[in-house]
Amino acid sequence: MTPTPIVDASHYVRDAPTAELSKSVGQPYSFKFLYFPIHAAGSCSRELLGYGKDKFAFEILSPANWGEEKPKTPFHCMPVLYIKTKDGKDLVLSEASVIEHYLAKHMNLLGDNEYEELLIKSFHSSSTMFQGGFASNVTWCPPEVQPQTLAYFKANTFPTWIKTHTKHLLDNGDNGHYIGNKLSLADIRTANAIEHLSVQPCADELMDIIKKAPSLMKVRETVANDPKIAAWRASKEYQTLTSNSKAFFLNPMKFMGPPKI
Amino acid sequence: MTPTPIVDASHYVRDAPTAELSKSVGQPYSFKFLYFPIHAAGSCSRELLGYGKDKFAFEILSPANWGEEKPKTPFHCMPVLYIKTKDGKDLVLSEASVIEHYLAKHMNLLGDNEYEELLIKSFHSSSTMFQGGFASNVTWCPPEVQPQTLAYFKANTFPTWIKTHTKHLLDNGDNGHYIGNKLSLADIRTANAIEHLSVQPCADELMDIIKKAPSLMKVRETVANDPKIAAWRASKEYQTLTSNSKAFFLNPMKFMGPPKI
Repeated sequence: MTPTPIVDASHYVRDAPTAELSKSVGQPYSFKFLYFPIHAAGSCSRELLGYGKDKFAFEILSPANWGEEKPKTPFHCMPVLYIKTKDGKDLVLSEASVIEHYLAKHMNLLGDNEYEELLIKSFHSSSTMFQGGFASNVTWCPPEVQPQTLAYFKANTFPTWIKTHTKHLLDNGDNGHYIGNKLSLADIRTANAIEHLSVQPCADELMDIIKKAPSLMKVRETVANDPKIAAWRASKEYQTLTSNSKAFFLNPMKFMGPPKI
Repeated sequence: MTPTPIVDASHYVRDAPTAELSKSVGQPYSFKFLYFPIHAAGSCSRELLGYGKDKFAFEILSPANWGEEKPKTPFHCMPVLYIKTKDGKDLVLSEASVIEHYLAKHMNLLGDNEYEELLIKSFHSSSTMFQGGFASNVTWCPPEVQPQTLAYFKANTFPTWIKTHTKHLLDNGDNGHYIGNKLSLADIRTANAIEHLSVQPCADELMDIIKKAPSLMKVRETVANDPKIAAWRASKEYQTLTSNSKAFFLNPMKFMGPPKI
């Protein structure tokens, strides 16, 4: 992984009218993606980049010194997507869901029409909220209440997610996809939510639950078996991210330093 | 507020090919919006509906019996948007951000081109995460750790949000808008995040902080002074939602019943 390029994105590039920047952003040439060197909120975008690598070259970055680089990002947070456009501009996007929608659009992973796109984005949002709910309610909760919040997650959030998503997957013929018979952002986002659970310290008990949800397991397998995604997951880079993630989630607070209170 | 209509949306309407549904969803005629009778995650969509009322009739719903109605929603959660289309179809969208993007598109609140839309959606996401962060890290944290998580929010999340958004607002001329000189989804989302803080039990200490951020206060005022939004906020319905919200956040757990653990 290469260190962050020195691109000051504390404000969005405004050296041209937005109408011109709009044409540029619609014609990406290559991407650089910046996030902590773990899967977490970066995994879905990286998977999209891996999926589209024949179309767009990409590079995975992690900060060399996040404290110094943070003020150069739009919201002082990651992920950040650096876009080199076909007409040579350097543009920047921030916020995971905005980046994922943008990449999915350019990888043709938003279905065949607006209705499919709306449903795909709904499934995407639901699985993002599911993974984010685990992160905010379990991972980042003060350790003394984590047993309580994990129990709540297992008794409420998790079964509701499984039940409602299973219903939609069965409606679509239980074929490992949410919409029709083709891969979409929804499939990739859900698969990544499941992979997120698999790198947690309590992975065994979480995976025991998901293994009893065959329709969701089929999405996980279908995504894993896509040849381009399988190639990305077989890479040294991906495997380093997996081992980093497992180490990170053993004690997230340690890596983040003490909270500023 | 009227009770929920009996529309089973446990799966998305599939009585027609998605290409046909796509044409229908692109031509909404009127809306019904279902959420708990408080502002919270429903406020931004309701404000968009109020803003667009000359174009689309709308009705604000709250569940008469959420336990019974829950299984008829796509993810067993709210908000839900029921769309009556110009060709007479009943379609359903779920997930707050998907609903907000969809409504903003039909109210012309996504800027003038794709680049502006991407930035507006980034600001929207950042302010949604900010409000959602307060909800998950403070409101829904076990009460015994709330003083600690509120202190963390005030020392980290809150100042970072203020600092980065102020930078972008100054970049745009400090005119109460994020993009150009016109109202967008970004302005409305940020204003609603601020209003969310104002109905919390600890509103005084939170509002003391935001009052020292003049660029953000200007967004708040600009949105509040928009004639159509001002009319919605002056309505009896909005004011009931405000008093309900203040009562709700005094003890959220009481209204939700004991967690199923």
